[in-house]
Amino acid sequence: MRVGVLTGGGDCPGLNAVIRAVVRKGVEVYDFDFVGFRDGWRGPLENVTCPLGVAEVRGILPRGGTVLGSSRTNPFKVEGGVERIKQNLADNHVDALVAIGGEDTLGVATKLSDLGVNVVGVPKTIDNDLSGTDFTFGFDTAVNIAMEAIDRLHTTAESHHRVLVVEVMGRHAGWIALHAGMAGGANIVLIPEKPFDIDKVCAYVEERFKKSYAPIVVVSEGAVPVDGGDMTLQSGETDAFGHVRLGGIGDRLASEIEQRTGKEARAVVLGHVQRGGTPTAFDRWLATRFGLHAITAVAEKDFGTMVALRGKDIVRVPLIEGTGELKVVSPEEYAEAEVFFG
Amino acid sequence: MRVGVLTGGGDCPGLNAVIRAVVRKGVEVYDFDFVGFRDGWRGPLENVTCPLGVAEVRGILPRGGTVLGSSRTNPFKVEGGVERIKQNLADNHVDALVAIGGEDTLGVATKLSDLGVNVVGVPKTIDNDLSGTDFTFGFDTAVNIAMEAIDRLHTTAESHHRVLVVEVMGRHAGWIALHAGMAGGANIVLIPEKPFDIDKVCAYVEERFKKSYAPIVVVSEGAVPVDGGDMTLQSGETDAFGHVRLGGIGDRLASEIEQRTGKEARAVVLGHVQRGGTPTAFDRWLATRFGLHAITAVAEKDFGTMVALRGKDIVRVPLIEGTGELKVVSPEEYAEAEVFFG
Amino acid sequence: MRVGVLTGGGDCPGLNAVIRAVVRKGVEVYDFDFVGFRDGWRGPLENVTCPLGVAEVRGILPRGGTVLGSSRTNPFKVEGGVERIKQNLADNHVDALVAIGGEDTLGVATKLSDLGVNVVGVPKTIDNDLSGTDFTFGFDTAVNIAMEAIDRLHTTAESHHRVLVVEVMGRHAGWIALHAGMAGGANIVLIPEKPFDIDKVCAYVEERFKKSYAPIVVVSEGAVPVDGGDMTLQSGETDAFGHVRLGGIGDRLASEIEQRTGKEARAVVLGHVQRGGTPTAFDRWLATRFGLHAITAVAEKDFGTMVALRGKDIVRVPLIEGTGELKVVSPEEYAEAEVFFG
Amino acid sequence: MRVGVLTGGGDCPGLNAVIRAVVRKGVEVYDFDFVGFRDGWRGPLENVTCPLGVAEVRGILPRGGTVLGSSRTNPFKVEGGVERIKQNLADNHVDALVAIGGEDTLGVATKLSDLGVNVVGVPKTIDNDLSGTDFTFGFDTAVNIAMEAIDRLHTTAESHHRVLVVEVMGRHAGWIALHAGMAGGANIVLIPEKPFDIDKVCAYVEERFKKSYAPIVVVSEGAVPVDGGDMTLQSGETDAFGHVRLGGIGDRLASEIEQRTGKEARAVVLGHVQRGGTPTAFDRWLATRFGLHAITAVAEKDFGTMVALRGKDIVRVPLIEGTGELKVVSPEEYAEAEVFFG
Repeated sequence: MRVGVLTGGGDCPGLNAVIRAVVRKGVEVYDFDFVGFRDGWRGPLENVTCPLGVAEVRGILPRGGTVLGSSRTNPFKVEGGVERIKQNLADNHVDALVAIGGEDTLGVATKLSDLGVNVVGVPKTIDNDLSGTDFTFGFDTAVNIAMEAIDRLHTTAESHHRVLVVEVMGRHAGWIALHAGMAGGANIVLIPEKPFDIDKVCAYVEERFKKSYAPIVVVSEGAVPVDGGDMTLQSGETDAFGHVRLGGIGDRLASEIEQRTGKEARAVVLGHVQRGGTPTAFDRWLATRFGLHAITAVAEKDFGTMVALRGKDIVRVPLIEGTGELKVVSPEEYAEAEVFFG
Repeated sequence: MRVGVLTGGGDCPGLNAVIRAVVRKGVEVYDFDFVGFRDGWRGPLENVTCPLGVAEVRGILPRGGTVLGSSRTNPFKVEGGVERIKQNLADNHVDALVAIGGEDTLGVATKLSDLGVNVVGVPKTIDNDLSGTDFTFGFDTAVNIAMEAIDRLHTTAESHHRVLVVEVMGRHAGWIALHAGMAGGANIVLIPEKPFDIDKVCAYVEERFKKSYAPIVVVSEGAVPVDGGDMTLQSGETDAFGHVRLGGIGDRLASEIEQRTGKEARAVVLGHVQRGGTPTAFDRWLATRFGLHAITAVAEKDFGTMVALRGKDIVRVPLIEGTGELKVVSPEEYAEAEVFFG
Repeated sequence: MRVGVLTGGGDCPGLNAVIRAVVRKGVEVYDFDFVGFRDGWRGPLENVTCPLGVAEVRGILPRGGTVLGSSRTNPFKVEGGVERIKQNLADNHVDALVAIGGEDTLGVATKLSDLGVNVVGVPKTIDNDLSGTDFTFGFDTAVNIAMEAIDRLHTTAESHHRVLVVEVMGRHAGWIALHAGMAGGANIVLIPEKPFDIDKVCAYVEERFKKSYAPIVVVSEGAVPVDGGDMTLQSGETDAFGHVRLGGIGDRLASEIEQRTGKEARAVVLGHVQRGGTPTAFDRWLATRFGLHAITAVAEKDFGTMVALRGKDIVRVPLIEGTGELKVVSPEEYAEAEVFFG
Repeated sequence: MRVGVLTGGGDCPGLNAVIRAVVRKGVEVYDFDFVGFRDGWRGPLENVTCPLGVAEVRGILPRGGTVLGSSRTNPFKVEGGVERIKQNLADNHVDALVAIGGEDTLGVATKLSDLGVNVVGVPKTIDNDLSGTDFTFGFDTAVNIAMEAIDRLHTTAESHHRVLVVEVMGRHAGWIALHAGMAGGANIVLIPEKPFDIDKVCAYVEERFKKSYAPIVVVSEGAVPVDGGDMTLQSGETDAFGHVRLGGIGDRLASEIEQRTGKEARAVVLGHVQRGGTPTAFDRWLATRFGLHAITAVAEKDFGTMVALRGKDIVRVPLIEGTGELKVVSPEEYAEAEVFFG
């Protein structure tokens, strides 16, 4: 059998570990051969391929990024896109595809599967917000990076009686903020699922200082104030200089806290540091297992499925499950650790 | 309610995170007060206590070790031990105990529970070999430390055409070796559950060199050769100098491979480095949740239980479940990644 | 002899290592005793002291921050400040002071020394911009943290064809940017000493993309555009919302590059992460040696001096040398590595 | 000009950084072209070459090992070796060589230089024991790895009242042990330059335990007991099993301390972990500067020299200086930190 592999969407530590596992087991156990498609769905759409064998995956396990490149190309938004993909797969004698990606990439995979393309999906999101799987790889790495930053900030917060605001990733789901906040011993954790009240945040900041503690605030990039909160946190507005307003929620929150409480506040914006570089052991282990099981699904011609973690087991679920509704932090999950968060 | 807390057995990153969570939630949500017992069961046996409140747990989340100290004292091996414990608990007005420990510590907890002591257990083992829970805290930290060592060894193995043997923890179970070997891209993984054949190990070493790759061998400290293997790997024997024979399985394996294959082989023995120091995010998160749920079990007077991880949920199981048979690597679990291991 | 110790100014990994070395050698070799003054010059000014002995410095070597606290209090700006300090030193029977701090703290030390107070200084600045010493502790830690961030960003820059801007510390001197940029393989390094031309920056960004490389830009927080550059990078202005303009040079540069080149650009602002947490080996070694030599200077009554690193030697220089002109990156030092920087 | 580059001797983080700097500046500033010689002096001896240009050095800055491979081949021990090297250099139109290596590699370079080969040397030793330069790259990385291990061991030593022995690299010089011991807060540091008295070591161990501290002992692999010390620490002897005696000084010391003091003692042997993997910022900075200055020496035809660090400056010294006597820890340098070491 000849198998195509592609990676789509945002960077995520562990992508290379998946690719390596797919190829190593595919070649050594199933005697498959492989073709790499470059830059997500752009590869099969525009027939951009690269060699992919045991030699190409050598040494890539610990590396961040993806040796196949990535993009957000959506063939369904391209005239005749599906037909071109089918033709290119046929021209390359590709019998099946392993598509590694998030909501968008797997959404395309789902539709192509319905249209007769043999696809197995591998779920990927650094934000950990894909349903169908307990965890996704990359998430543990992001949480550790954020936690290490928080660890370092504690001493500074204390020595200088400053508020430190750490902005972490998470547009729609607060998983990174919640886990890093718990692991780092943050004092306030603000997530997209639970709009925050700036008055309460500032009241808690002041309460902490009275006990002579300096607070650390962890905020998801997608966190928002409650309706009617008198904060000017809107993004994307044009400022007095004619530029789009700079600074994300982290900067704005620090500025707002400083103005309201009179306490110095500083922001740290980790940004893409959270999604690059070498994966943690958990992420390499999970990504490797995802890859091993995905290629077995191909061997068993169990197409239209994706691999998923359930407890300690890797299972297969219909592709549609991974691209259904977003997995967000439930009120119960947030409440579990609330004793630590103002 | 007044609650005693103790930690027993070997060091494990995350112990302080459990203690902190137990105390913070106990004080702030349930209005309990606490007494710390020093050095495992020695504390309640010999009435060695220390203050334990919100002040005492401040800043301990990222720290290795345990602020309560530890020991392997077993009160059932001490004349009148149980009575003394009961008396000391009564004298300290302790209504319930949170006992954090492994097989031995929880074994004592189980028996005391049967004898009427109010105990809730928190499972702890760096080797991840306690049944009843999917994972234990400390394990992820150990695996990451071992993986980082393997990462560093890859370049040296390649540049010098050397065999590198990494001895990791795991007396009875090969979890650390298996996970670190998968995450680090090791070429041979030897675990206690599967006696190894030194001839096959050496044959694979030579095969690797023919392909111009230098192999990395990960070996659990408890790994053993198959019966009749002509290796002299027995421990504890007295050598020609009248000393107990030095060097564990790592050193011996390196020496044996060197002699048999003529390839230079070097051992790295990580030892206690794996069980000290700051915990990973996963371990802090798991340990914190264990602590939060343990004190709730106390509040709900659900004694004789221990907390456990099942999938993403923290559940309660009877104490006896944690101290039953050891959780070892099954043949299927080992086979899953075997494509990578010679 | 009775010796007072204080730490002033911004946080810096290694402060605790200095304190520990001063106290350990002072007690064990010279049989001195010690008093800690809290929060920089506020301590002797307002007579806020704490016990300081071998017990107090135990275990602090690897910790960030300072166990003595810090502040920017300047007794020369307080009515009768100098007299109060002299009186409080006398009341505490303090024969000599070890003052650990940067330009401001040592500036005060210099003046007090001229007024007859027995002071030995230890230079401290994370920015490495104090003259008189080859390096200061804390700087190596900051550079490593920034380098690790850059390492992680490389894969993301490449996979997504994005410009990544990393803002690092350095208000007046570009040492952190220069060293981290060299160590991390950055493509553009902008420092305060050399105003940048935004047109040239953007031209280089575009040139890199033509060669299909995604650039990483490291920028000191104090970097500024050349006069007449049509960038709106001024800080501290009030924007349309009545707030002080948010976002530092990192955010603004990313925004400007994005608008001019049409390439996605993202900023990472490491901020206080660079000055908190555990020091590197170099910083612990340097800080420890500074402490050991400072207390010897006290024992030898060589007051009015500060310790400094020259080559591998710790020497003593007049206090005034450390607080003279700022040590900035010379054109030659910048040019040395310019082959790597667009 | 056409320049050959080779790396010889043991692995050392920073080798790739040197190669990259040599090539980048050589190509971009001097318009040189390059040829890589594989595996140290074996390359020019046996004419094993590889392409070496800007493309080949891309992305290698953070990587351990050497892309050129290494060996300990000595052409002066091969019949007609020198003539073959000269012939191969001529055949490859090589005008000059950059030789990166330690005592042996630079020793060969020195002799070849005397015989008319155009060579510039770059000093390399993880042990930091080459004279002529203040520091060598790789050393800072090794010290940090050892320090991080010691950091992790502190909590375990304390919680379990155990002696922990850490064996670090250093056959002839104790630099790694001394620096890591200072940075990690070790209690005993044993180096090759100062034979140790096992009685005194054990007496100090017992003294520490009386104060309820658990000691950490750092020992260079080349440390030896004083003459007449009744320890059986000889290496390389054949034991009762006919095998070369296993276990280095670390294992033996732990065993000896355990037997004599009755306190549990455990050894950690970091071995090659110290010389593999990504370099620290200091080592990347130093290695990069060495490379930049070495290629300038070539451009200026200043052959027979090697680059060296003196203070903050990179200077050139005659090759012979780097291969003269070993730079060992002087009694004064050891004594500087002795207050910390029992």
